Amino acid sequence: MTRMHAIIVVGDGMADRALKDLNYKTPLEVARVGAMNRLTSAGASGLLDPIGPGLVPGSDVANLSILGYDVSRVYTGRGPLEAAGAGLELQKGDLAFRCNFATVENDLTVLDERAGRILDGLGELEEALRSLEFGGGHDIRFIFKRTSGFRGVLLLRGEGLSPNLSTHMPKVGCRADSVKPTDDSTEAERTCNALREFIKTSHEFLDDHPVNQKRRSEGKLPANIVAPWGPGKQPNAKTLSEHYGLKAACVAGVSLIKGICKLAGMTVIDVPGATGDIDTDTTAKGEAALRMLRDHDLVFVHVEGPDEASHDGNILGKISIIEKIDSMVGLLLEHVNLEETYVALLADHVTSTRLRRHTGDPVPIVIAGADVTRDEVASYSERMASRGSLGRVRGTDLMPIILDLIGKMEKLGE
Amino acid sequence: MTRMHAIIVVGDGMADRALKDLNYKTPLEVARVGAMNRLTSAGASGLLDPIGPGLVPGSDVANLSILGYDVSRVYTGRGPLEAAGAGLELQKGDLAFRCNFATVENDLTVLDERAGRILDGLGELEEALRSLEFGGGHDIRFIFKRTSGFRGVLLLRGEGLSPNLSTHMPKVGCRADSVKPTDDSTEAERTCNALREFIKTSHEFLDDHPVNQKRRSEGKLPANIVAPWGPGKQPNAKTLSEHYGLKAACVAGVSLIKGICKLAGMTVIDVPGATGDIDTDTTAKGEAALRMLRDHDLVFVHVEGPDEASHDGNILGKISIIEKIDSMVGLLLEHVNLEETYVALLADHVTSTRLRRHTGDPVPIVIAGADVTRDEVASYSERMASRGSLGRVRGTDLMPIILDLIGKMEKLGE
Repeated sequence: MTRMHAIIVVGDGMADRALKDLNYKTPLEVARVGAMNRLTSAGASGLLDPIGPGLVPGSDVANLSILGYDVSRVYTGRGPLEAAGAGLELQKGDLAFRCNFATVENDLTVLDERAGRILDGLGELEEALRSLEFGGGHDIRFIFKRTSGFRGVLLLRGEGLSPNLSTHMPKVGCRADSVKPTDDSTEAERTCNALREFIKTSHEFLDDHPVNQKRRSEGKLPANIVAPWGPGKQPNAKTLSEHYGLKAACVAGVSLIKGICKLAGMTVIDVPGATGDIDTDTTAKGEAALRMLRDHDLVFVHVEGPDEASHDGNILGKISIIEKIDSMVGLLLEHVNLEETYVALLADHVTSTRLRRHTGDPVPIVIAGADVTRDEVASYSERMASRGSLGRVRGTDLMPIILDLIGKMEKLGE
Repeated sequence: MTRMHAIIVVGDGMADRALKDLNYKTPLEVARVGAMNRLTSAGASGLLDPIGPGLVPGSDVANLSILGYDVSRVYTGRGPLEAAGAGLELQKGDLAFRCNFATVENDLTVLDERAGRILDGLGELEEALRSLEFGGGHDIRFIFKRTSGFRGVLLLRGEGLSPNLSTHMPKVGCRADSVKPTDDSTEAERTCNALREFIKTSHEFLDDHPVNQKRRSEGKLPANIVAPWGPGKQPNAKTLSEHYGLKAACVAGVSLIKGICKLAGMTVIDVPGATGDIDTDTTAKGEAALRMLRDHDLVFVHVEGPDEASHDGNILGKISIIEKIDSMVGLLLEHVNLEETYVALLADHVTSTRLRRHTGDPVPIVIAGADVTRDEVASYSERMASRGSLGRVRGTDLMPIILDLIGKMEKLGE
């Protein structure tokens, strides 16, 4: 019997609500997505709730769920997933944070959450922060590593660290060091003090850095602080191989997804040109996926760009990156044989470009390949997907559906 | 940003199965429901299982579920919900029952479960039962209060009361005092004895009451017994405000729904003319809903009438009350701005007019408002709803979906 394969393509935040600016259509309905529509014509469509109807997922829990994990059991915070993606090994007791390079005023009030989406000079800024590692005069180490664009990871290493902190993604108009303990323990207080010190010191180290002097002279926002959020310790999860005997690979630009996929025991590769933004090289990602398909059962391809465009309220940018994903889907369809390979396409959640945030709506999903029940849905969109033969399923249903199609699902009972 | 609101309109038992007498259409398909159809054209339709496919809900668990409660954890019985709706405060240990005024023969065999849907003289009958409170010669107090129409509430107050009793809604042909303990405990036996005594004594007090003498002389059925059912102690549930920071109000005629909404921490108002029957004043209810909308995030409007008509097998009555609900929906649509307010319409369960009981079918639901994915469904009915963009959801999904639309849903993960 032919060995079956599957590719899952995820456009992060690619789905949307109808936009008044698009005459009450969604970006997917307006974008030219010929390849996605060919895939849809050949497949079974449906709606997928990343967690459940109305529940609003972050990208972390959404993608964990799509890979089959029960987030209520596995998820400990975003930090350790980002750290794994950045290649930082967590030791027992380490506390990991996702970080943003951000722009603040002198009193640490946030002016921009992403430092104007800084792309250049980040290596030098990272270098400047290295001397902060043992700078605290206490027994907690700070280990910082930048990942893609404005993103980075911070590990706190030491005894008795607590994730019970009120950190949140930096918000314009709020102070970058406004973190507080969320319980009365000495661990939380101690961790909070160390974190505040890291934040303040990062500002001292970065504010006058030559990279930022240059940015200011060019009228750009300086990356003059590092804001950590999403703390957590190492989660405990079975790999896809342990769970299902599945050999899987991941093609992704952002460290969050790489980290989730490492946790899942997948082969995680770095693709040159995969930036995690709307300028990403989707052709390179598609080619990498096809290479990975040769010796893996499942390839998970994640494109971050649509979410970034949506958070910026950038409708045209979103349409443009959707069209790039469409080209990538076209490339995949040219090179895979649907008799041997199933191709699934979905968003990990809806990001409303109007509201500039995630919402709890279901996303459209299509699965094409030999054995699926083709339906009459011929275009890939939020509106049409509900008419498909898949009906309405949940994030955690996807992995069993795919595994069943490629013949890797164990029978329950006898 | 505009503050968003929502109205949820529930027609109790409004959905039905196809009826031979209606040429295999349902009452919703035959009734003139222009406003419901306009709402449907502007919205997203779907099917909703109050609990789950095939599961037959009482109105208590159906409406709890629609308000987002996991009934397997919250529900302790119908009695305490009815008591809360009647304004009776349960003390610790109190056992609450829903009651019907009913008609029995001399040997207490039930002739009519609702005493001919008695409407007049109920205050005098309630008064007559007052002297029963300490009448038992034991240390259990009986506290009875009538609510709307033939309905009432009984509290047993004392030490060691047990809800483990075989009570059920009175049934024609069965004895009204046929209650038994369902376990071997002395508590259940003692409670059962007290309850039997209440039932028998109510018959003694009511049978020859002047109100019933008059009813008999007019050829009406006497309300000559009180039949308690649905025992339970005080449930423990978070309010909608504690859960979601939601300020919600309830417009309902029957004490069960008022009680559920009190448990949920909602503002519960009395609307003159809201009778809980097919003669209810739906215009007054619509106007009350619009008033409540001014200072609440969510208004829950419940109309009991269709369920009552269905239990009576009254097809024309059901069509007529559905058309009254349609007028109310029309009034709401005239006065709300769908850019700021979401309007949802559903039934809490199917009541089959042929079978004169609830069934486990899904109900049609439509949600209209700014950001929903409009579909091509243009009429509100059991049959068309399955073609809508909502797919098939569950009762407990409704509150998250609505909360997400009005921007009150917390993100899971980051």
